Amino acid sequence: MPAPLKVALLGCGVVGTQVARRLLEHADELASRVGTSLELVGIAVRNATAPREGITGTPLADLLTDDAEALVDGADVVVEVMGGIEPARTLILRAIEGGASVVTANKALLAQDGPTLYKAADTAGVDLYFEAAVAGAIPIVRPVRESLAGDQVQRVLGIVNGTTNYVLDRMATEGLELEQAVKEAQALGYAEADPTADVEGYDAAAKAAILASLAFHTRVSIDDVAREGISAVTAADVQWAQRTGHTIKLLAIAERNTSDGVAGIQVRVHPALVPDAHPLAGVRGAFNAVFVEAEAAGELMFYGRGAGGAPTASAILGDLVSVARHRVLGGRGPVESSYAALPVLPADAARTRFQVRLDVDDRPGVLAQVAAALAEHDVSIEAVRQSADGHSADGHSADGHSADADRRDPTDVARLLLTTHAAPERALAATVAALTDLDVVRDVVSVLRVEGA
Amino acid sequence: MPAPLKVALLGCGVVGTQVARRLLEHADELASRVGTSLELVGIAVRNATAPREGITGTPLADLLTDDAEALVDGADVVVEVMGGIEPARTLILRAIEGGASVVTANKALLAQDGPTLYKAADTAGVDLYFEAAVAGAIPIVRPVRESLAGDQVQRVLGIVNGTTNYVLDRMATEGLELEQAVKEAQALGYAEADPTADVEGYDAAAKAAILASLAFHTRVSIDDVAREGISAVTAADVQWAQRTGHTIKLLAIAERNTSDGVAGIQVRVHPALVPDAHPLAGVRGAFNAVFVEAEAAGELMFYGRGAGGAPTASAILGDLVSVARHRVLGGRGPVESSYAALPVLPADAARTRFQVRLDVDDRPGVLAQVAAALAEHDVSIEAVRQSADGHSADGHSADGHSADADRRDPTDVARLLLTTHAAPERALAATVAALTDLDVVRDVVSVLRVEGA
Repeated sequence: MPAPLKVALLGCGVVGTQVARRLLEHADELASRVGTSLELVGIAVRNATAPREGITGTPLADLLTDDAEALVDGADVVVEVMGGIEPARTLILRAIEGGASVVTANKALLAQDGPTLYKAADTAGVDLYFEAAVAGAIPIVRPVRESLAGDQVQRVLGIVNGTTNYVLDRMATEGLELEQAVKEAQALGYAEADPTADVEGYDAAAKAAILASLAFHTRVSIDDVAREGISAVTAADVQWAQRTGHTIKLLAIAERNTSDGVAGIQVRVHPALVPDAHPLAGVRGAFNAVFVEAEAAGELMFYGRGAGGAPTASAILGDLVSVARHRVLGGRGPVESSYAALPVLPADAARTRFQVRLDVDDRPGVLAQVAAALAEHDVSIEAVRQSADGHSADGHSADGHSADADRRDPTDVARLLLTTHAAPERALAATVAALTDLDVVRDVVSVLRVEGA
Repeated sequence: MPAPLKVALLGCGVVGTQVARRLLEHADELASRVGTSLELVGIAVRNATAPREGITGTPLADLLTDDAEALVDGADVVVEVMGGIEPARTLILRAIEGGASVVTANKALLAQDGPTLYKAADTAGVDLYFEAAVAGAIPIVRPVRESLAGDQVQRVLGIVNGTTNYVLDRMATEGLELEQAVKEAQALGYAEADPTADVEGYDAAAKAAILASLAFHTRVSIDDVAREGISAVTAADVQWAQRTGHTIKLLAIAERNTSDGVAGIQVRVHPALVPDAHPLAGVRGAFNAVFVEAEAAGELMFYGRGAGGAPTASAILGDLVSVARHRVLGGRGPVESSYAALPVLPADAARTRFQVRLDVDDRPGVLAQVAAALAEHDVSIEAVRQSADGHSADGHSADGHSADADRRDPTDVARLLLTTHAAPERALAATVAALTDLDVVRDVVSVLRVEGA
């Protein structure tokens, strides 16, 4: 057997601990699969003497070091699970320049500065793998950048943030308001004390950028992603969605599109109504799933756990075996593929179907005025649902509090639920402005996109 | 750019035609992804002058040849989509020995003689890729043999035959009997004129062997797979399944297990009741899906089209890009990993839950006798459902014909539906024999395994 490979681990949180433990516990299996031993030579942390659950009192404790640079310099493979931009970026570049291959789970860094890392790895002739950066345990990076390399991806729709999927699922199944569901997720450890990165879609946007880059052979950074989180989604929205046969999901979407005659791509993150018959609608709890539409393959879906120590460690160790095998047998993994260089089209050119809920005066002629406002902006109506009793049907969330009590006047208010055909986002924005100006429209209660239909 | 790579195509059926067309139509894209052009140098067929839809009258017609050996000898990469054992086996070995990498969709050959092909490829230092051999367009071979290489797979449950899934789906949604559904599948081109390979589970068994080999790093041939098709599944079985919250699926199962103290694996194909809440239950029509349970990753599912020209071509072209990149950039794909060499345990040691439907005398004391017979063989009952009206509830299939009219005597017959806890297959076989011998049991109507619970 060739000499053991020296593996350096940067970071020792929930994921790092699992990676370290599995490297020790499955050392023989891994050696058989790689063709040589993987020797964990150190674990870089900020404070090497602080007690750590799962590490302190085990042989792993002796591997802790606060000298990340020295650790990186002696390694054949560097596994980075510290997260954040710095010092992760500097350490990864140092590792690559020193000739080490890198396995990272760092979605934020890849979405911000991926091309720099790719280029450094290519120059040094080493591997850069990052399966764990998108959708945790789910093999999605490798399938998109390798298995689908002979196909043309048209569209990627992903539930790539487990926290928001859990929150939306609890809103749907228990009738909770967002705030309650977020608190519950925090209590269970699914959401952070500051849930902004998840709830506002920043985490999903980073993953959308990475998936879009791979799917469309184009550089896409997080700045190219139009982002809207779930903070405006109410229990009433969720219930109305259910009533019309939909489930609300936070989707990361990357698709080929055309705007003003220019063929390009669009990348966006926002809540959307997904028809219940669509495979993504059934993705429950904190699970993730990525739905891919490709020209030849047709519809594909990849489903599994998107976070957590062990699932993320599974993805990292799979990458580790790949890059280690290249060290032993020669060869290299895929490099950056950005030849297509498709333009990222403006967000407001995206075409989707919309569901618009309006509170209107309950009298004849109102629908005609509303329909005229839509027609004026070339937005075509697919379906209208009118409910004179709209408020009593959905004004109460499950906890007995009204979500919009200040707007209630059941005697003469009707609710209109409009579903449009596909329309450009900018046309819809103009339509909503026009509707708001109509005397008969009391409130535009919600506007939600419909995807996956 | 390096010199173009010479690609030889063996076979020009539905899949081969799509592969050839896409090689031409997407030549520029593929060249950008590979780093050099892929030049289709010939298409070997039995009769090069016979007219072929999609080929005749196109530039592809000039590439047809009936001299497969000469074609193989000049190729850098050979794509084999002719199917069957011979001459595919001889041509693939000839290609490998001549230094060509091979991409094949040939499940039958891999399941029968995979190690010979692997060994030849390893000796010659070339790639052997076969994503299209299992579940068509779905990336499953690569995820299992690469993405999960750092994890321990516990279990694989696959719907890997689209024909039988379509047939079972139509039985469930339309109440058809098997024969009718098969005829419908034949009319739609989903089933062959002789549907035996699909209906009796031979196709699924070959895929089960391939998946088991990859998942458990162990040589598994089709002869190791316990196989039972769907030909005994009746409309009544499907309806009873629905009534108890299940869907009947033909599953390919590979799992770690222990028998008489020996740790090993079991590989089997049979129809099974899948709880409606399980992700596999929702896989409709001719779609395929593979559900994987791994120690660290937890539950994963891969879903998509399992057959058809374009979907299968997607998988083949993905492989083709990978092996071509190795030609250009150096390196090699994974080789055979069979170090674990786990024993394949006897089929009758498999432990599953069972659902048993019995026609019994409708009088007091019968359940006690039945329960005693189970207890005697250490089979423990999880649930019993008794219906004095069993026949009228399910004796009629949707077309109005009785499935078991010869056994009808509604005045004094009751139906018992027993669900057992997990029990060894051999214990259940003995139990069924004992039940058949009981005077009060008129008929053991069906015995179905329950999986995925």
